[in-house]
Amino acid sequence: MHPFDTATALASSSTGRFGGSTSPAYANMVGPFGGTTAATLLNAALQHPARIGEPIALTVNFASALADGSFEVESRAVRTNRSTQHWAIELMQAGEVAATATAVFARRRETWSMPEASAPSDLPEPQALPRASLVGRPAWVQRYDMRFIEGGMPDRFDGELQADSRSCLWVRDEPPRPLDFASLAALADCFFPRVFLRRRKIVPIGTVSLTTYFHADAAMLAAQGEQPVLGTARAVNFRNGYFDQSAEVWSSRRELLASTHQVVYYRE
Amino acid sequence: MHPFDTATALASSSTGRFGGSTSPAYANMVGPFGGTTAATLLNAALQHPARIGEPIALTVNFASALADGSFEVESRAVRTNRSTQHWAIELMQAGEVAATATAVFARRRETWSMPEASAPSDLPEPQALPRASLVGRPAWVQRYDMRFIEGGMPDRFDGELQADSRSCLWVRDEPPRPLDFASLAALADCFFPRVFLRRRKIVPIGTVSLTTYFHADAAMLAAQGEQPVLGTARAVNFRNGYFDQSAEVWSSRRELLASTHQVVYYRE
Repeated sequence: MHPFDTATALASSSTGRFGGSTSPAYANMVGPFGGTTAATLLNAALQHPARIGEPIALTVNFASALADGSFEVESRAVRTNRSTQHWAIELMQAGEVAATATAVFARRRETWSMPEASAPSDLPEPQALPRASLVGRPAWVQRYDMRFIEGGMPDRFDGELQADSRSCLWVRDEPPRPLDFASLAALADCFFPRVFLRRRKIVPIGTVSLTTYFHADAAMLAAQGEQPVLGTARAVNFRNGYFDQSAEVWSSRRELLASTHQVVYYRE
Repeated sequence: MHPFDTATALASSSTGRFGGSTSPAYANMVGPFGGTTAATLLNAALQHPARIGEPIALTVNFASALADGSFEVESRAVRTNRSTQHWAIELMQAGEVAATATAVFARRRETWSMPEASAPSDLPEPQALPRASLVGRPAWVQRYDMRFIEGGMPDRFDGELQADSRSCLWVRDEPPRPLDFASLAALADCFFPRVFLRRRKIVPIGTVSLTTYFHADAAMLAAQGEQPVLGTARAVNFRNGYFDQSAEVWSSRRELLASTHQVVYYRE
């Protein structure tokens, strides 16, 4: 079993109440990597017997730092239409809500389709780049093979303000694992907090809300398989304790798989 | 009373259950303008007696087309920390969930702050531009004074594919009204569906999920007052029935007030 599947596994339920547990393989500085929490919440809808269609949108709100250990997740289809379904999901730990999520699922139909944003071009292939250093990084970072074209984690934190916090990287699960909706939901949170890059300074941070839009269907994810995806990320604005960052995840054929946005608390 | 306040009013409640009603002044083609629905859901947290702080993030999921008429809103503080508070909100109509929302509120503290995205510069002032035509537009469009610098609603729908769907406009409530969190939440949905601009074609559409990050605090909103804000919008990707669009709302001093993202269903 891949460590990602262990970290995001839910004990099966026919009622929408699931049991789960954090995994040391995806530990962050405090508690688990938010990406695995997001994937676990999505799994509670994906694995619900009443589910229809595939994920279109997921918003996860991190209400408190998750503690290492077990938790419960409850998913509820609040509205099921002919081709769309709306979910409310809560993660409880020690009797309190630690995270909430809403998700929209849909059965897609073929329509006119067209990109507007485009992936950067003329990039080196992943095998031509070194894997990013894991020295001093928490466990979850070791579960991704990241190869930066631009905007890797600074090699020194000297507090020198940078002009921007843009990143461009190849990234895949480590060890390799075929991409699916759950792993894409987690990968949407793998872009380091932009404040570290912009300020070349480590300050206490925590994502408070994470929204991901899925542009890929299951067939596109299957075609991507275990190949590295291309990620592009940047910050929007930092102000009085909160900043937001946006990112895109592109397939190796440069099709958009997901676009994602988050707002992050920071101190100092 | 300003028509916006009428449209988003909730009958007061000490229990987190509120009554509201759609307003003809903000009617859309079918049902009410989604922006007023978003503002109404936010109001259910803003007006809740247990609320702390100011809005940081709001995600609204439109589970079905709202019918004209009355509805109930229930807001619940699922977690209250020292400086942050997480909300779950549901709008019920005719015994069914028609919309859900989650919101994060926080008491902000002064920290290092810095923009990363920036507003376009060298723009004509609003008074130098004509107000956008209201011919054939639904009622809610008449409740905004929009002056386009770029990317207005096409004057013909000839189906000619455009290179992009970017818009840049000055916009304010009509009649003028001092900006607050509720009106900013509504204004985040005033950017026409990008598919109309990109394809110069009207197709059936409906926003399914809308996320807004608030960068402004109450003092910044008070400083903006009734002056027009600057909006910038674009699409990200259109694929098999769903596209996403992103927008920013800037103050007249070119400070970011809000960044906003939505995923929209479209047919054909």
